[in-house]
Amino acid sequence: MAFAADASARIRGAPSVLAVTYGAGALNVVNAIAGSYAEKAPVVVVSGAPASGERTGGLLVHHQAKRFDSQLAIFREITCDQACLDDPARAPAEVARVLASARRLSRPVYLEVPRDLFDAPCAAIARLPDAEPDAEAIAACADEVLARLAAARRPVLMVGVEVRRFGLEAEVARLARTLAIPVVTSFLGRGLLASSDAPLAGTYLGAAGDGAVSALVEESDALLLLGVIVSDTNFGVSPTRVDLRHAIHALDGCVRLSHHAYPDIPLGALVTALLARAPRLSDARRVETAHPPHGLADDARAVTPVDIAAGINDLMAEHGRFPVSADVGDSLFTGLDLEPTDYVAPGYYATMGFAVPAALGIQATTGRRPLVLVGDGAFQMTGWELGHCRRYGWDPIVVVLNNSGWRMLSAFRPGARYAELGTWDFAACANALGGRGWRIETRHDLQLALGSAASDRGQFHLLDVRLAPDALSETLRRFAGARAPQATNNAIAA
Amino acid sequence: MAFAADASARIRGAPSVLAVTYGAGALNVVNAIAGSYAEKAPVVVVSGAPASGERTGGLLVHHQAKRFDSQLAIFREITCDQACLDDPARAPAEVARVLASARRLSRPVYLEVPRDLFDAPCAAIARLPDAEPDAEAIAACADEVLARLAAARRPVLMVGVEVRRFGLEAEVARLARTLAIPVVTSFLGRGLLASSDAPLAGTYLGAAGDGAVSALVEESDALLLLGVIVSDTNFGVSPTRVDLRHAIHALDGCVRLSHHAYPDIPLGALVTALLARAPRLSDARRVETAHPPHGLADDARAVTPVDIAAGINDLMAEHGRFPVSADVGDSLFTGLDLEPTDYVAPGYYATMGFAVPAALGIQATTGRRPLVLVGDGAFQMTGWELGHCRRYGWDPIVVVLNNSGWRMLSAFRPGARYAELGTWDFAACANALGGRGWRIETRHDLQLALGSAASDRGQFHLLDVRLAPDALSETLRRFAGARAPQATNNAIAA
Amino acid sequence: MAFAADASARIRGAPSVLAVTYGAGALNVVNAIAGSYAEKAPVVVVSGAPASGERTGGLLVHHQAKRFDSQLAIFREITCDQACLDDPARAPAEVARVLASARRLSRPVYLEVPRDLFDAPCAAIARLPDAEPDAEAIAACADEVLARLAAARRPVLMVGVEVRRFGLEAEVARLARTLAIPVVTSFLGRGLLASSDAPLAGTYLGAAGDGAVSALVEESDALLLLGVIVSDTNFGVSPTRVDLRHAIHALDGCVRLSHHAYPDIPLGALVTALLARAPRLSDARRVETAHPPHGLADDARAVTPVDIAAGINDLMAEHGRFPVSADVGDSLFTGLDLEPTDYVAPGYYATMGFAVPAALGIQATTGRRPLVLVGDGAFQMTGWELGHCRRYGWDPIVVVLNNSGWRMLSAFRPGARYAELGTWDFAACANALGGRGWRIETRHDLQLALGSAASDRGQFHLLDVRLAPDALSETLRRFAGARAPQATNNAIAA
Amino acid sequence: MAFAADASARIRGAPSVLAVTYGAGALNVVNAIAGSYAEKAPVVVVSGAPASGERTGGLLVHHQAKRFDSQLAIFREITCDQACLDDPARAPAEVARVLASARRLSRPVYLEVPRDLFDAPCAAIARLPDAEPDAEAIAACADEVLARLAAARRPVLMVGVEVRRFGLEAEVARLARTLAIPVVTSFLGRGLLASSDAPLAGTYLGAAGDGAVSALVEESDALLLLGVIVSDTNFGVSPTRVDLRHAIHALDGCVRLSHHAYPDIPLGALVTALLARAPRLSDARRVETAHPPHGLADDARAVTPVDIAAGINDLMAEHGRFPVSADVGDSLFTGLDLEPTDYVAPGYYATMGFAVPAALGIQATTGRRPLVLVGDGAFQMTGWELGHCRRYGWDPIVVVLNNSGWRMLSAFRPGARYAELGTWDFAACANALGGRGWRIETRHDLQLALGSAASDRGQFHLLDVRLAPDALSETLRRFAGARAPQATNNAIAA
Repeated sequence: MAFAADASARIRGAPSVLAVTYGAGALNVVNAIAGSYAEKAPVVVVSGAPASGERTGGLLVHHQAKRFDSQLAIFREITCDQACLDDPARAPAEVARVLASARRLSRPVYLEVPRDLFDAPCAAIARLPDAEPDAEAIAACADEVLARLAAARRPVLMVGVEVRRFGLEAEVARLARTLAIPVVTSFLGRGLLASSDAPLAGTYLGAAGDGAVSALVEESDALLLLGVIVSDTNFGVSPTRVDLRHAIHALDGCVRLSHHAYPDIPLGALVTALLARAPRLSDARRVETAHPPHGLADDARAVTPVDIAAGINDLMAEHGRFPVSADVGDSLFTGLDLEPTDYVAPGYYATMGFAVPAALGIQATTGRRPLVLVGDGAFQMTGWELGHCRRYGWDPIVVVLNNSGWRMLSAFRPGARYAELGTWDFAACANALGGRGWRIETRHDLQLALGSAASDRGQFHLLDVRLAPDALSETLRRFAGARAPQATNNAIAA
Repeated sequence: MAFAADASARIRGAPSVLAVTYGAGALNVVNAIAGSYAEKAPVVVVSGAPASGERTGGLLVHHQAKRFDSQLAIFREITCDQACLDDPARAPAEVARVLASARRLSRPVYLEVPRDLFDAPCAAIARLPDAEPDAEAIAACADEVLARLAAARRPVLMVGVEVRRFGLEAEVARLARTLAIPVVTSFLGRGLLASSDAPLAGTYLGAAGDGAVSALVEESDALLLLGVIVSDTNFGVSPTRVDLRHAIHALDGCVRLSHHAYPDIPLGALVTALLARAPRLSDARRVETAHPPHGLADDARAVTPVDIAAGINDLMAEHGRFPVSADVGDSLFTGLDLEPTDYVAPGYYATMGFAVPAALGIQATTGRRPLVLVGDGAFQMTGWELGHCRRYGWDPIVVVLNNSGWRMLSAFRPGARYAELGTWDFAACANALGGRGWRIETRHDLQLALGSAASDRGQFHLLDVRLAPDALSETLRRFAGARAPQATNNAIAA
Repeated sequence: MAFAADASARIRGAPSVLAVTYGAGALNVVNAIAGSYAEKAPVVVVSGAPASGERTGGLLVHHQAKRFDSQLAIFREITCDQACLDDPARAPAEVARVLASARRLSRPVYLEVPRDLFDAPCAAIARLPDAEPDAEAIAACADEVLARLAAARRPVLMVGVEVRRFGLEAEVARLARTLAIPVVTSFLGRGLLASSDAPLAGTYLGAAGDGAVSALVEESDALLLLGVIVSDTNFGVSPTRVDLRHAIHALDGCVRLSHHAYPDIPLGALVTALLARAPRLSDARRVETAHPPHGLADDARAVTPVDIAAGINDLMAEHGRFPVSADVGDSLFTGLDLEPTDYVAPGYYATMGFAVPAALGIQATTGRRPLVLVGDGAFQMTGWELGHCRRYGWDPIVVVLNNSGWRMLSAFRPGARYAELGTWDFAACANALGGRGWRIETRHDLQLALGSAASDRGQFHLLDVRLAPDALSETLRRFAGARAPQATNNAIAA
Repeated sequence: MAFAADASARIRGAPSVLAVTYGAGALNVVNAIAGSYAEKAPVVVVSGAPASGERTGGLLVHHQAKRFDSQLAIFREITCDQACLDDPARAPAEVARVLASARRLSRPVYLEVPRDLFDAPCAAIARLPDAEPDAEAIAACADEVLARLAAARRPVLMVGVEVRRFGLEAEVARLARTLAIPVVTSFLGRGLLASSDAPLAGTYLGAAGDGAVSALVEESDALLLLGVIVSDTNFGVSPTRVDLRHAIHALDGCVRLSHHAYPDIPLGALVTALLARAPRLSDARRVETAHPPHGLADDARAVTPVDIAAGINDLMAEHGRFPVSADVGDSLFTGLDLEPTDYVAPGYYATMGFAVPAALGIQATTGRRPLVLVGDGAFQMTGWELGHCRRYGWDPIVVVLNNSGWRMLSAFRPGARYAELGTWDFAACANALGGRGWRIETRHDLQLALGSAASDRGQFHLLDVRLAPDALSETLRRFAGARAPQATNNAIAA
């Protein structure tokens, strides 16, 4: 359920809480919270802990690993602040500090409560005021950024995950319009500005992405990166195509450009200052925004990933936009062909098994019906959480890209036997779990099932889409081509 | 699959290997390996890692949490030795040291291989010789132990998990016969000496266990604990019923008795020395061994946990003994009513979701057909791994104790809403996953299904046994009665 | 002055306090406090520290090394407990805990006070009660020790530094008389039982020590070591001559014998229990106690170290016993030839420069006139502290064993040029520092000066005794002979 | 001797080596090396250590504190890189790395050699090449700095300790002339550019310093700080008089200005780039350089600190410039009144006892005759090292500012009894130590003694200058006035 808490924090742009037991509970969410850390989702993990007396007595407590404080040590590696609430008098101040860290850094935090103190009374927790940023420094920074943009011939704005985390989407959309420069999202920022009228050109994914978007970004002489995590994967295998030395990069409270850096510039303060000072740039280049596929054919041909995207786009055109959660692998890349919509996916940390529980988190906390893109390998990990839908009335539409294996792995190492999973009958499983399963062999099947699912509320629908093992998305094909097999041996795709 | 590797190490009494990717792979097995640490299963975790160049370059690598070495720091908390194999010249010595630690301490270890060095040639790895124990110290210790036993009127031997881990089962059985004193197993040691002719009285579980066994142990004036982890749960809620100050306790290479301790006494060396010096004790008390239930009635009454035990005992009487894996909760306690057989279960660390993957590990590495006892809550976590059976031809018999909730939790806190899970149709799921599902409502159903499953090889069978929510095993009932609700609030049962 | 605080703690058997400034003050006492740790002197170090505001502000503070808390990290390595008193509400409990640690472990501790909180009011500090030892465990241990002694033919008792630290001298003396077994002191325990009527045979120093004492110890079949630190130096180069496996060793709250150990047995509780249960041993061997040299000749021959001992023994016979402080090197060994008296010296940690400031500490806190044995090398380090005597009216008698070099070093590596120091005129220095200096060339000079010094109170006397470079004590000669040069290359004698 | 090694590194601008024994030797230099760290002197500490076998054996080794690696842990807090050379195969690479750190960061480093490996053969140590700085970044930074200076009306250059450490004095002098802007030194940089023809205006010390220099600095609208450590003391009590937000600050490889920072700009590379690009600034303001006092009166009046400065200035005018080492307290401030000359002093870390051993280090490694300014309190700590002069033929001129107490402390807390030291007769001590002592009561005495000392080579001269307790330098008077007593309570002046 840690993925659900994570997705809840992502979709709402606000901290969520995850309560776990000491030991076997907490240690089971380590991977999910590491992903929250990497992708900046502010999950507040609250764990039980042995009572004070148990810590000093010689007796071992069940659920204990090496030492009583091993768990705290582990969470120190994957959260940005921690506290062990072993003194009710100090607890309010510690909780306030930890929550302020979660908000300021948009990262997970960790609170530990000894089990004998769960009911201990303590004073009210006051919300710590945000640190007052240095107005003079922010003004100096904003001026330099605007001067750089004004002097450029091909300025481009790339928006990343922090824009969502810090709730800046509307402001950034307004900034893009004011500056009149083209906007792209990073891979992890996919879905940003989806409902705005900003001049959105698409999502950047380097060699693996749309060629026009890549050219736009890579040929820019003033690339403004707002809240973008720059990593090996989200820059399309390798960031060397973008010369970061000539970019303007605002991330983690720091703005870097032209060999120097402004420390302590919160992203929100920067955006506000840019808006306040931005002239309308007169010579901006207009961009054609990307054209996602539409018009799924109603025939008996086998389904390919782009058909899935077309079918969903058709569906959203008719029924309105769904929030989408995508898992890693070709699900993630197929998501790139969707019309802009609210979108959560582990685009950088790349953990498998994210999408289904994330969708449940979205529906539980927003009430909106989610659409899930997930591979058969990832579904085998956590897809069974769908069994909880019936009790709560959740009704996600789950599209399983079933190609009987980990195709992300076989794309890089053709013939790898460990990538074969056999073919599971997920439609039957869906029925057994209390939902409605569809086996999809043709484009006709797909169209029928999508339409039925959209019209039928109250139970989840699962579309087990049988893909040929070599039916990769264009993006994955480009991605695999761009990356030397050796380099991806053990690193990509969990 | 970490539970499978763990179970493989347990059932074979030898190290097993678990290979994971860096980040999302490795961090996903933290809980399972913490359990291996707690319960002393020597799993060798081998993880990839970023290449050396990637560590020092500024670029983030996907799958990375806080720092490159966060993962190593985390595994330091849950393994007994670690090495990062970043220098091929030193790698053989480091691997040899780490493997020796795994063998000597019977705990998991961790090896990290930078991805650019996976194919780097290195010298052969020599197995380090075991440290030579101090013969004089061992003799002194054995003499004192035997003197204590000889002077006692009611000596008892309790065998624990280390006896299995260090491969001492046959020797300990011989020791028990030679000393002619009654033997019990600890809770975590359940299954030990199952196939021996030692005078086995049963499994000790304090206030929650069989009254005769408890009396035997608690009234002993010389309780010899060989390799028993003493914790809050495996001593039946509380160890205060046994006065450890008057026991003889061999664990972790140390023997404690009468206020003093012999350090550096390996369990194997002690057992050998005891055997070599043991006189046949003349005044030993004979014990009646426990009588597990048999003779499942073939009627239309609802099934209770003890019926399940009886049914399985009948089955084993006819078809021979199966290795059994059990999950936490009432599955674990129902396992106490089985005839002695090879048995793996997280009896101390108490993590949920162990039993099904553990069974796959057993069948994969021993070829024997396992029988699984698992609750509906735990099955929801990892039961879906059964989908892999078809590809490999595995055919475990899985008994789901389905009472539509976490009854372990509601036993301690009646009415807790979070313990309700709704009723899932696991029989249908089994069919969808390629196995054979049975819904069991009556004792007749149970008998039929068990018999059919036993006769039908090549596919897994799942018995979805519908229990009334209040159909607890006797043991769980006693366990809950013995433990104050407050104390178990957030700690018991994952 | 840290040596003075250390010596004060040693001579009084109670904690002393050392107040230092943050940084340059505190870091200047690291070596002395490391010696206190090694030799178990409970010095309470109280240091200033930057104010809270200064810690978080960006500005560097003078006296600061790497980080604000570097100093705390350093003292963590050389003290047994620490606290930073940054919260007046918690300060009393922290101080109480730290002081209890100093008392219980007889080791130095560290308290840090931010400079803005020096005057902050706080509640009174309650003395923590001592932990109640386990009477049953102590009785079992004492019984086994006494049984071992009773069964032995040549039992011997060796007393060490903890006997002094925990104030057990009188009780141990009574124990020795009750058991009627011969007693020796360890090297670091030199001076213990000096004023008792225990059957004291001398000080053990292995190959380097008195042959009769060494034989007594090394041939014992039940050597009871009470509070003795066993190290490479205090066991006369190498401890292998004593078979510790057959000894009974009480140290650091643990009693080891016959391959096993009793943890948590405080030395005081053990001694009390031994006394309460000890029968008078009937077959004890009587020992001749050692005969220190007396009768310094009044002639014109050059002085040797044994002459110095004889002269001091004559002096003490006439004027009563002085407390003696000795430095490392031949001063330390010459001290072995003195009549038993109160004695402090860094016999194990072996830091140079200890004796003079230690003497000032003794006189400042006990009012007794000390006698100092110090080499020329050590005097050059800290001898100048004698200049403070005039202001306070202190009047130690300081005997400088001046052989124009570090003879300890040249004893091990003959011809080493770095051991040559040239000849300094310490008598002239003494006069310049406000004391009375004597240059001693002959035994006549020595006798005259010692007599004059003893009769003249109110100013310090310094006897600059010119020794031939090869005039070593017998002990140092033996010591050097027993030790391979290579092994002592860089390790012995500071 | 650690201060001698430190001063040798300072005066030569190159690493020096300090060899110490394990334990009592190494821990005795902790304070001095902490000062080297704080003030960036690259001392290479080489320590012995126990042999490998001794580390794992149970036996304690003398000189050992808490653990074998406590010493390494301690030096980690006060050095910038460390290595334990326990593997001859790896030793060359480790030494090369550690020495490169010392050079690059100009900080002390630590090497530990197990005593069994001192003679172990190993490969030659290759000097690591310096990292190639980023030319484009340096150019961008230099351009911005020059633009800021060009736009300023009152630019000022302040040079600090890194200019000396990195051997940039000549280049910086040339830069100052090229830019034609006035230059001051920081307090710790005192002595820099002394022998250049740069437009040197004096040394900045804020409220405590020369008013004209303070005005120059504090009214500058473009203050370029090259290698200046900004701390509470060297900025004259408080740095708030200089608005660092408008300064240009190059330190620790980073250049900060106008709210942003250029990381990774080595000071040498920056200076070279500035020189290459600097236009001659046309509108630079000429400054009168400071006028140190001269012309010591030859009369019978009591000596004041400024008389000492005048006397030394007269002396240097006649005999040429001496390198000067000064201790903390009024010695340090009196040094401000000297004509510019090579100068070492602990101006930031403020440890006492530095000056005399530092002078010996200077003479030992440069052959030049040093002049020492030291107070009576500091002399009592380490002045006795002068006794080594005779053997080596060293002949420093030592001026003791003897006011019978720690006047730095009583300046802040009048009447503090702990600041009284009594009056020592240092002239007599000097004679006893083999030098020539002078007691100075009048200005006539001072003139006579300075002249005689200057003409007399081959033995050290010590001038015991008796000052009235209230005869403070102007600087100390201002310093004390500027600083609230409370704030300096326990922090200033060791």
